[in-house]
Amino acid sequence: MNANSYVVGVDFGTLSGRAVVVRVSDGAELGSAVHEYAHRVIEHSLPGSDERLGPDWALQSPQDWIDVLKIAVPQAIAASGVAPEQVIGIGTDFTACTVLPTTADGTPLCFETPSEPHAWPKLWKHHAAQPHADRINELAARRGESWLPRYGGKISSEWEFAKGLQVLEEAPEVYARAERWIEAADWIIWQLTGVESRNICTVGYKGIFQDGSYPSEEFLAELNPGFAGFAGKLATGQVGDQVNGTTLAPLGGLAGRLTAQAAEWTGLPEGVAVAVGNVDAHVTAAAADAVRPGQMVAIMGTSTCHIMPSDQLAEVPGMCGVVRDGIVPGLWGYEAGQSAVGDIFAWFVDNFGGDHESLTALAEKQAVGEHGLVALDWFGGNRSVLVDHNLSGVIIGQTLATKPEDVYRALIESTAFGARMIVETFEKSGVPVEEFVVAGGLLKNRFLMQVYADVLRRPLSVIGSDQGPALGSAIHAAVAAGAYPGIQEAAAAMGKRTEAAYVPDEASADAYDRLYAEYRRLHDFFGDGKMLHTLRAIRNEAREGAPPPGLRSGGSEATIATREGGGSGATEPASAEWRQ
Amino acid sequence: MNANSYVVGVDFGTLSGRAVVVRVSDGAELGSAVHEYAHRVIEHSLPGSDERLGPDWALQSPQDWIDVLKIAVPQAIAASGVAPEQVIGIGTDFTACTVLPTTADGTPLCFETPSEPHAWPKLWKHHAAQPHADRINELAARRGESWLPRYGGKISSEWEFAKGLQVLEEAPEVYARAERWIEAADWIIWQLTGVESRNICTVGYKGIFQDGSYPSEEFLAELNPGFAGFAGKLATGQVGDQVNGTTLAPLGGLAGRLTAQAAEWTGLPEGVAVAVGNVDAHVTAAAADAVRPGQMVAIMGTSTCHIMPSDQLAEVPGMCGVVRDGIVPGLWGYEAGQSAVGDIFAWFVDNFGGDHESLTALAEKQAVGEHGLVALDWFGGNRSVLVDHNLSGVIIGQTLATKPEDVYRALIESTAFGARMIVETFEKSGVPVEEFVVAGGLLKNRFLMQVYADVLRRPLSVIGSDQGPALGSAIHAAVAAGAYPGIQEAAAAMGKRTEAAYVPDEASADAYDRLYAEYRRLHDFFGDGKMLHTLRAIRNEAREGAPPPGLRSGGSEATIATREGGGSGATEPASAEWRQ
Repeated sequence: MNANSYVVGVDFGTLSGRAVVVRVSDGAELGSAVHEYAHRVIEHSLPGSDERLGPDWALQSPQDWIDVLKIAVPQAIAASGVAPEQVIGIGTDFTACTVLPTTADGTPLCFETPSEPHAWPKLWKHHAAQPHADRINELAARRGESWLPRYGGKISSEWEFAKGLQVLEEAPEVYARAERWIEAADWIIWQLTGVESRNICTVGYKGIFQDGSYPSEEFLAELNPGFAGFAGKLATGQVGDQVNGTTLAPLGGLAGRLTAQAAEWTGLPEGVAVAVGNVDAHVTAAAADAVRPGQMVAIMGTSTCHIMPSDQLAEVPGMCGVVRDGIVPGLWGYEAGQSAVGDIFAWFVDNFGGDHESLTALAEKQAVGEHGLVALDWFGGNRSVLVDHNLSGVIIGQTLATKPEDVYRALIESTAFGARMIVETFEKSGVPVEEFVVAGGLLKNRFLMQVYADVLRRPLSVIGSDQGPALGSAIHAAVAAGAYPGIQEAAAAMGKRTEAAYVPDEASADAYDRLYAEYRRLHDFFGDGKMLHTLRAIRNEAREGAPPPGLRSGGSEATIATREGGGSGATEPASAEWRQ
Repeated sequence: MNANSYVVGVDFGTLSGRAVVVRVSDGAELGSAVHEYAHRVIEHSLPGSDERLGPDWALQSPQDWIDVLKIAVPQAIAASGVAPEQVIGIGTDFTACTVLPTTADGTPLCFETPSEPHAWPKLWKHHAAQPHADRINELAARRGESWLPRYGGKISSEWEFAKGLQVLEEAPEVYARAERWIEAADWIIWQLTGVESRNICTVGYKGIFQDGSYPSEEFLAELNPGFAGFAGKLATGQVGDQVNGTTLAPLGGLAGRLTAQAAEWTGLPEGVAVAVGNVDAHVTAAAADAVRPGQMVAIMGTSTCHIMPSDQLAEVPGMCGVVRDGIVPGLWGYEAGQSAVGDIFAWFVDNFGGDHESLTALAEKQAVGEHGLVALDWFGGNRSVLVDHNLSGVIIGQTLATKPEDVYRALIESTAFGARMIVETFEKSGVPVEEFVVAGGLLKNRFLMQVYADVLRRPLSVIGSDQGPALGSAIHAAVAAGAYPGIQEAAAAMGKRTEAAYVPDEASADAYDRLYAEYRRLHDFFGDGKMLHTLRAIRNEAREGAPPPGLRSGGSEATIATREGGGSGATEPASAEWRQ
């Protein structure tokens, strides 16, 4: 291997894109740059419009993604001191399911009809397709569709079929014009290589592709006759096959070569290897060198995503999905999730005062259980293991002596209990969890990490990079460029993980066991949703009558909850000149 | 009746005493004055001492009470413009059970041995006798004592027997020297008249005097052989009898005549009528002219006390007590209570920011149920209807969109649901509640009042005075002075009540019914205490090993919870010259 070979990893996040330049031989990160999206999250109104979007809407602009290639990549190269000709490949990862309708040549429909909300890319956290997801789940359960248990019994409103059905039913003309319905993760690869491909990760986790096929036409037609041909907007066939010009592409594979135009955007040499698209959470496993069976990587930020390869196939209750080759080829890839984690702590601080540092400092002085509280971490619903977005938070045990740091600590603990519930559910289902590896922004809270170690009663490994997804994408680029035979070998050389960075304290772990028993009791009592669903229904009825779909007025939970969103700062309409 | 006759009512509260001068003919309040206790609540350390009191201790100084007579009464007279010789009587009310050990002549033991914590008066909210109350309750339940159901199945750690047993077991020498164990309500009358009497209200509610007798010597001896003769420190016999120089005195009765010394203190004429002692909550019923069967007066402040005369005797689950003649002669007097009400709202504001006014303003804009929350109002435990101090608060339904005003509103509603639970429990037990009358500091929150009207589905009457207890004491003084034949007649002339000041809104009431159903579900689930007791036990164990009783170090819940307490500002030792 050439010691002077480099790869570029690009991570497309919710609010910005980050590029990092990485040495192929050892994963050293030599330079990076961030570009913040001009349109941020589009959730209040479309650019250039005063008309308000509906309460659970969240869109993005493809122009912002292209700008990351044009701005952040050259900046990262410059910062690294690496000569562009030393770069042998580029890899990318994206939020998912972030999905958009395009023409047959990949032009986003929003560039043609920017005043049509449904023409824009729907960001992962666009939740307005919940009724459509509900119908999909009901019908699949009723028909006993074999793919349903692969998703813990419920698919999400965030995913491709729910969002697609929403477009069909709310904007049939957009649906008709959408020759392709494509993950942003794959769309960006199309822009880099000039050819369409579909990565097996999002195809499996977000596209309900299992055992070689999508949900049947018969199933889709029963949802809505117009939906029968929906899979025709996706990609079909077997991994590696080209069907109608589209490849179902394995992770770490070579999607294509950098086009002249993309070379001009990025400043990289035309023709360098472009890795198959991937998802931010999944690619992080490689960055943590945790791509072997039983290595569960928890990417802990505003929410937590759990990623784990395994050689066992099992139906784990409440998991987000299990996909063959979904993390690395040759293994089953499991995903689970906690809907809100860092979001809960931020909610507390934003609404009830204090700051994370001082609350943590006060909380960590306490003995385990001294606050007398237990909470359920369902402030954003519960993905794993209950798969119920309509659940909500619970705090019990408050007295007149309860202080803010008591509640803050109980909230931290509740998320650790939620993580333990997930780990135990995997193991009970016959999927062993050998190692718990933490990545993500919450790593910086050492107290929180110790709580997790104590609650989980296991040592925690931690990732050795604070730009895990971008590093993971760079690792995939190295594989695509042929520098390593596979992801596992590349991850071993380039990934970074410290084992047993946190070790459980036995006395604390024993004390947490007692609190966890109460957490489980609450979980059992409120998990059936009887009370919390009733409150949600009362709440929804109390809010004023539902405005028309698509464009609605007024605030909403989703709008408010998106702390990091902040609406579109830009007012210029999306330009038709986006490819220049 | 002489149109120029006046009476003085004196209300001894937790932090101050208030005197008001009232016209006998119509209850007009002509002048008032407040004296704040120099020692406030003694809960951290004794005056002049650095040694810390135990966590649940709360004491008062008798000197402060005398100072109210010496300072506030003359000031009120002066403010009223009434000539002292126009005053025909004085009445008083006190917090209860606030109780102290004295010599046979009424000298408080704390004046003799001020460095002995147990020699001081124990304020109502001294909760360090909980273990003793627990033993009393266990034994009484085991023996099937007939008086136990008269107290809703449990006596309180605040009451005379529990506090007395604590003194016996923790400071036997104090117990031995205590020839009298007397309510402050009666002690102050002793100072005014020179003769000891015991009002039938505290004797019944706090002294476990039922059907003409205290708990038997056999019962007391089984608790502790040294406790067998405890009732000898109280008063015995039948109402109106003098036994060993002590009268069991009916409410509204004449306790005696103002002594020369008390005349000197107060500036009132020697020999004016002094009414039998009484309790702040109970005397408020007269001030609200709500002393007829089925008129439930809720005195809503930091906590809520419910007082209701009835011609029905029943065992109401969780009531604080039912006492013959306990509010007005000839009727059964019921008391119930909510351990924390205003305290909960204050806790929220003190710990989580905002202020009552702006939180209320935001909360009242919401539709019922719009916040999606339900809470259990057990932040200070639950007196009625569960009688369990070890319960704690619960809030369910929070999402990342939950705002402070949502929680604040849910807390207000939770206390209204708690009140409804009490009213329903009375009615189910065969004791009709004909009218709900509100007195106390929370009256000023009009939004809160409307919530109560809607939740209770009844019109609310409100008291027409903001110094209800002092006015009530003045009404009792008028009766004692012979200006009226009885409390009901005096209350009709002098008391002030607006009927149907708040009327339920039917739509809101219907909506609250749905939330109340969820409150009841929570009540049922958490009311058995299984989870909340476990959390309390874990909490208590997590706190460092219990220090020696009596004098302990460190903060505690009770200490923190006493917002209005703030410790003794005075450092001078109590003076032996207190009678001067």
